[in-house]
Amino acid sequence: MDRPLAPLVWRSDHLALLDQRLLPHREVWLTVRNAAETAERIATMAVRGAPAIGIAAAYGLALEARRTDLPPGSFRDRLHDAAATLRASRPTAVNLGWALDRMLALLEPAAGEPSSIARRLEQEAIRIHEEDVAANRRIGALGRDLLGDTATILTHCNAGALATGGYGTALGIVRAAVESGRKIAVFAGETRPWLQGARLTAWELARDGIAVTLITDGMAGHFFREGTFDAVIVGADRIAANGDTANKIGTYTLAVLASRHGIPFYVAAPISTVDLATPSGDAIAIEERSGDEVVEATGVNERGEPARVRLAPAGVAVRHPAFDVTPAELISAIITERGIIRAPFGEALRRAVASPG
Amino acid sequence: MDRPLAPLVWRSDHLALLDQRLLPHREVWLTVRNAAETAERIATMAVRGAPAIGIAAAYGLALEARRTDLPPGSFRDRLHDAAATLRASRPTAVNLGWALDRMLALLEPAAGEPSSIARRLEQEAIRIHEEDVAANRRIGALGRDLLGDTATILTHCNAGALATGGYGTALGIVRAAVESGRKIAVFAGETRPWLQGARLTAWELARDGIAVTLITDGMAGHFFREGTFDAVIVGADRIAANGDTANKIGTYTLAVLASRHGIPFYVAAPISTVDLATPSGDAIAIEERSGDEVVEATGVNERGEPARVRLAPAGVAVRHPAFDVTPAELISAIITERGIIRAPFGEALRRAVASPG
Repeated sequence: MDRPLAPLVWRSDHLALLDQRLLPHREVWLTVRNAAETAERIATMAVRGAPAIGIAAAYGLALEARRTDLPPGSFRDRLHDAAATLRASRPTAVNLGWALDRMLALLEPAAGEPSSIARRLEQEAIRIHEEDVAANRRIGALGRDLLGDTATILTHCNAGALATGGYGTALGIVRAAVESGRKIAVFAGETRPWLQGARLTAWELARDGIAVTLITDGMAGHFFREGTFDAVIVGADRIAANGDTANKIGTYTLAVLASRHGIPFYVAAPISTVDLATPSGDAIAIEERSGDEVVEATGVNERGEPARVRLAPAGVAVRHPAFDVTPAELISAIITERGIIRAPFGEALRRAVASPG
Repeated sequence: MDRPLAPLVWRSDHLALLDQRLLPHREVWLTVRNAAETAERIATMAVRGAPAIGIAAAYGLALEARRTDLPPGSFRDRLHDAAATLRASRPTAVNLGWALDRMLALLEPAAGEPSSIARRLEQEAIRIHEEDVAANRRIGALGRDLLGDTATILTHCNAGALATGGYGTALGIVRAAVESGRKIAVFAGETRPWLQGARLTAWELARDGIAVTLITDGMAGHFFREGTFDAVIVGADRIAANGDTANKIGTYTLAVLASRHGIPFYVAAPISTVDLATPSGDAIAIEERSGDEVVEATGVNERGEPARVRLAPAGVAVRHPAFDVTPAELISAIITERGIIRAPFGEALRRAVASPG
């Protein structure tokens, strides 16, 4: 194994982002130097995954505070504007707003000179990043004990190192289980339309030598019937106060299948994913992305060059909700760095959020 | 609307097949002149859909009987060999074996001279084809009365004109409902990996001016939660004696979702899809196709040329069951040309198969 995989690296004067649109075919690092560039990379999914976009946004705001080519306006106003731009870059994952709120708290009155605030913003972004990796390792350590010595795990999308500060949430549990000597095999749903499973999860697990089998999303039911899976583990983009969980489109279907087959369905996420201000899943805004992503598939051609193909007839009507909501009743446990939370979720989530961490 | 859509046209000295691997991007008609060529076109899915491959196999055997370049061996033996080749071309759909059995019955002793048998084989293949279209229209007429004046239907794969002799089973019901003045909208799951929904269903419905919205397979659950669907209607590749139904991979998942949401789940299929010799779904052979179809997607590039892209890392492990089994308990009704069959299916299916048709 190379150095631990991370989707972003802080370089003081810029943030380097591993372009997840080109993985696994090309490993290209992008440079962003201000908040607007960061917001654009989040919106176009060069960086994706709820924890990772929170971290990226924090660094984006830190970069904005360090700009020497600042547009007119007061330092604080410009940073608030930049935070608003970052916050609007994607609507569903709550970690984005959570990280920005932590950063903006440093702009309170009496916070000091711009240069001193900029230093503290940088330190806070680094802290958010480091805390996320630590949270993932704790989630892994807690979650692995839910698995037997031998287990086949179904996962969806990519809740791995690439979706976080490093290590991963759902895949962090897989990594921790493997590190503790358990024999773990993973089935990865390809996760159309964006193919996070086929492109990112398959790649990052294979890179760590963890057994992974790729299936299309529609195949999950067949393997549930075959008795293939011991557990489903997924990440989360927003967990409402009652435990309802928004995650990548297709997650809800897996939860329904797991329930029918009596297989545990686990959500793995840092506590920053819990949004007590959202009472239930009905209140979560579901991002609707471009239909082009459904009508097309991207990969590489026979010469290994990035290529895209159109799959469907031109002009066909398309829907593209990027997330769905899994009701709390279908979730066996939510695995956070502050403990394994089980139903009834409401009180337990409130306690976990309020605890000192 | 052009002339009614059909995936195959009989030309006496050859069978013309609309190459479904290239649709909707190109309309290319292939010519087959003997059984081996027909079997190859079935195996590689130039023609697909359980009823359509039964019809194609019947014509393939009729072509074989007309060959003037026949290999050595007795006429009957050669035709039995050809039938075995056709029968082995795909394992799951029972219509293939059903059509071949009807054809082979004409080879019984005292069937006459080769030229006379060849004529009767041709007539029988044409009859199988015509009966299928008539069955589809009857299925449509029966099935449409299960729908309200306004309905949104979820379908999977392509159980349309392209999958049959013409008109379609699941999409035959949609067509019949539209023809009777009902306001019908269809959601088509794209049906990875082969994309029958994106490529074939979206194309054939748009061609007939029927409202169709394309979604990825993982999105179905979200729209069930939104209350979008009034019914699910799918085709079938094999219906066991107890009503368990094999159909394109991904179907079972939709049945589980429909059950959870209290939405009727209908299977539409000609009686030739019922296999009383298979007691239950456990006994249905599920074809495992090449992993390449999962790792790749095919479509057209920006210049409209056929192109394929590799989606996943090279060398990733893949599974590719091409079908799954939906247990009878999840099926609201099986709509055949001999009536709408409801649970308990066993006795009703036996009666329907035994009835004079």
